[in-house]
Amino acid sequence: MTLKLNCDLGESFGSWKMGLDEAVMPHIDQANIACGFHAGDPLVLQKTLAMAKENGVTIGAHPGYPDLVGFGRRSMKVSAAELKAMVQYQIAAIDGMAATQGLTLSYVKPHGAMYNDMMADASVRATIMAAIAEYHRPVVLMLQSTPNAETHLEEAKAAGIELLFEIFADRCYDDDGKLLARTKPGAVHTKDKMLAQVKQLKEQGTVTTVSGHTLTLRADTLCVHGDNMDGVNAIQEIRQLIQS
Amino acid sequence: MTLKLNCDLGESFGSWKMGLDEAVMPHIDQANIACGFHAGDPLVLQKTLAMAKENGVTIGAHPGYPDLVGFGRRSMKVSAAELKAMVQYQIAAIDGMAATQGLTLSYVKPHGAMYNDMMADASVRATIMAAIAEYHRPVVLMLQSTPNAETHLEEAKAAGIELLFEIFADRCYDDDGKLLARTKPGAVHTKDKMLAQVKQLKEQGTVTTVSGHTLTLRADTLCVHGDNMDGVNAIQEIRQLIQS
Amino acid sequence: MTLKLNCDLGESFGSWKMGLDEAVMPHIDQANIACGFHAGDPLVLQKTLAMAKENGVTIGAHPGYPDLVGFGRRSMKVSAAELKAMVQYQIAAIDGMAATQGLTLSYVKPHGAMYNDMMADASVRATIMAAIAEYHRPVVLMLQSTPNAETHLEEAKAAGIELLFEIFADRCYDDDGKLLARTKPGAVHTKDKMLAQVKQLKEQGTVTTVSGHTLTLRADTLCVHGDNMDGVNAIQEIRQLIQS
Amino acid sequence: MTLKLNCDLGESFGSWKMGLDEAVMPHIDQANIACGFHAGDPLVLQKTLAMAKENGVTIGAHPGYPDLVGFGRRSMKVSAAELKAMVQYQIAAIDGMAATQGLTLSYVKPHGAMYNDMMADASVRATIMAAIAEYHRPVVLMLQSTPNAETHLEEAKAAGIELLFEIFADRCYDDDGKLLARTKPGAVHTKDKMLAQVKQLKEQGTVTTVSGHTLTLRADTLCVHGDNMDGVNAIQEIRQLIQS
Repeated sequence: MTLKLNCDLGESFGSWKMGLDEAVMPHIDQANIACGFHAGDPLVLQKTLAMAKENGVTIGAHPGYPDLVGFGRRSMKVSAAELKAMVQYQIAAIDGMAATQGLTLSYVKPHGAMYNDMMADASVRATIMAAIAEYHRPVVLMLQSTPNAETHLEEAKAAGIELLFEIFADRCYDDDGKLLARTKPGAVHTKDKMLAQVKQLKEQGTVTTVSGHTLTLRADTLCVHGDNMDGVNAIQEIRQLIQS
Repeated sequence: MTLKLNCDLGESFGSWKMGLDEAVMPHIDQANIACGFHAGDPLVLQKTLAMAKENGVTIGAHPGYPDLVGFGRRSMKVSAAELKAMVQYQIAAIDGMAATQGLTLSYVKPHGAMYNDMMADASVRATIMAAIAEYHRPVVLMLQSTPNAETHLEEAKAAGIELLFEIFADRCYDDDGKLLARTKPGAVHTKDKMLAQVKQLKEQGTVTTVSGHTLTLRADTLCVHGDNMDGVNAIQEIRQLIQS
Repeated sequence: MTLKLNCDLGESFGSWKMGLDEAVMPHIDQANIACGFHAGDPLVLQKTLAMAKENGVTIGAHPGYPDLVGFGRRSMKVSAAELKAMVQYQIAAIDGMAATQGLTLSYVKPHGAMYNDMMADASVRATIMAAIAEYHRPVVLMLQSTPNAETHLEEAKAAGIELLFEIFADRCYDDDGKLLARTKPGAVHTKDKMLAQVKQLKEQGTVTTVSGHTLTLRADTLCVHGDNMDGVNAIQEIRQLIQS
Repeated sequence: MTLKLNCDLGESFGSWKMGLDEAVMPHIDQANIACGFHAGDPLVLQKTLAMAKENGVTIGAHPGYPDLVGFGRRSMKVSAAELKAMVQYQIAAIDGMAATQGLTLSYVKPHGAMYNDMMADASVRATIMAAIAEYHRPVVLMLQSTPNAETHLEEAKAAGIELLFEIFADRCYDDDGKLLARTKPGAVHTKDKMLAQVKQLKEQGTVTTVSGHTLTLRADTLCVHGDNMDGVNAIQEIRQLIQS
């Protein structure tokens, strides 16, 4: 199976623009589309879906905490009941909007702090898995590939859902298989290192950690960024490398 | 066909409670459920759907303008594109949440200022009809029964949707078939007058206007209110009268 | 100095009502008024200030996290810069609205999760103290009286602000001087126990903890609740007891 | 008196950036700063005030309707009581935040749809004037200069406030002294025409309308735009022209 490229899109809000969605869309496989709680609004959502359709890009819900001013990047201590309902609401909103354009929602990738909380806290993960499992149509959960992938697969199996594992193309991994904190030197790869990481992942299914160890990681998809033209150019180079 | 009873429900928001939903639900046929833009939140929506399921009540989307503090009661000059997208988003959200509980969304009744704008402005009405017509599943539009019902039916036919006409049980009609403005004396009926209006509607399909004229109005459903126990009691009396 | 009574007020939002503000206002000394981020809106704020003025009640800002649907009860991981700005914004809003009615804002008591975070986390407390200290007019910080009061006084002195210590009239204290968790039996006092706790506090400046120990606690003010008529009645009894 | 330059600033929101505030600030006299209802947030507000302070720019409140997703550009049918309270709340918020940085709020210029409603509707204008008049410190109202300026001055005098009249540097005026609708050809001036309009205004106190008539207009300040580098460059040229 070929590595896919996924990217966060549809993050504009009203008059505020964010991301080079039009430039990015032709070069990715999977669009993680904001659902209106941390970013996006009904019109932005509709336009982003249309753009995905035009480019044959697979559609994912990108639900977040209800925190526009914080862009969903601030952890919120929501209850399990609240979390489940807010995830299902956001999935439902994009699912129906997508179907209205003849598209099928394929997966869910939580955004920002909700994603981090999901990776760090088994109870948050269980709630998100339950939210997806209960949803009336099958959708897949995309989450970070770590050395705990087997545990996550077991959890998913018990919940009755499937998983997609993503690797961050431009981030250095520590020896535990976590992302090296952004505050540490070398946390974000130069372009050369990023391309080398992608190449190694493609050919050997491994990444080299900050201390030089080799770590085997499941990889269904690579997370890439389209915030600026450098990002867009990097996406194109990664794409070429993967397809070569 | 028997007259149905419809009522606005699911209008609580977070810690703020509104309406006697539990008391009302057993006595109505159709629940107009807030979708989160003017009232309601994902958890309230989920609970209201569960309550409707338990009581076998038909489910309608009750979309509103994005104005929580104004409760969707203040007209907003939104563009046609914005209006269509916000209506479809809200329909999608409740539709998917309903399906997750094994329920089928049946109709759409716009809320508050959006409802008034729809009745007063043909272009708003056209946009709302288009939003519903485009939606990937058939849903019916509920709107106010007026002497313009034939026009509305033609508009709906052209758009490719069906209509449900509602009458306000407790409001006095003026000679044009509009609701008498609330500022005018006699605008809101006493309970006796309300029951008399319902009886006449049931038996003769007419209402008596403020000046004593008889007006024939289509009536699929009666709008009732469950804000307080007086309202709930009135609903029960109307119900008995209709079913007798 | 006589014990004061403080109560959270102005927590309605648009069409949603909360609290028996009119019934409570005549019986309290200090109104903790919501500022629009977790509850309250400009009109509610204006009306609550007018009510406080009419009853000669001292005014406090009751700032919260920007989380209406969560009513400010969910901890949010905001940055120190964000926290300081949001506290100052909320203080400024109520301060100017109060001055417009000829009133003077006197103190600040953070709400809900922000209050809990302030009590539990020294860095949050430092940020809130700095926000108040920087504000262009002197306002006092109201916080929970605990065995750490001396530390808090030192922190406040270093920041250049003054403190008011509050005791919860209806809550049982554990041996550490914290509130017994609501999940534990006896966490919330019966009315008799509440009145006994107030009496003891007034006469001896102590509370009896869950295990029967006697704990000395600073007490400038008692936190009371006006959510329902039982609460309002209890406030009146506490008031009589304090003034007797 | 020299013509001033005023510009809308502080319109970023959370992670979404808008406007070249840093590039614009050195070249203007008056900053119309968003207050958080249609744009801006507490941190953006704080930073914008700091930038104004650094550049010695006079500070104005730029209150808007509570409509983030619509950027305050959609008219909302709010009641007079709601409008007054929301204007005072926003003035208070920026006033206190400004004072905390040692700055003095000087004027109020409503934003977007609220501005348009104020110019078009005498009752909206009366409410905004009353909101400002009631505010506990004197602040001036900035509004559009039209042939009705004398009427507006009388209204202001009756309300007890002062006015600043602004002219749009880059917009063509129709013969009624209104801005030519953006949908019409020539509605927005080329740079040459804009500079010619400013020159004429400075030297003769008049503008040439779309049909070639000469219209005398009061002009205290010119509204300029800093959305992009072309705008910033134009501001600098206007500035030179005014000061020459």
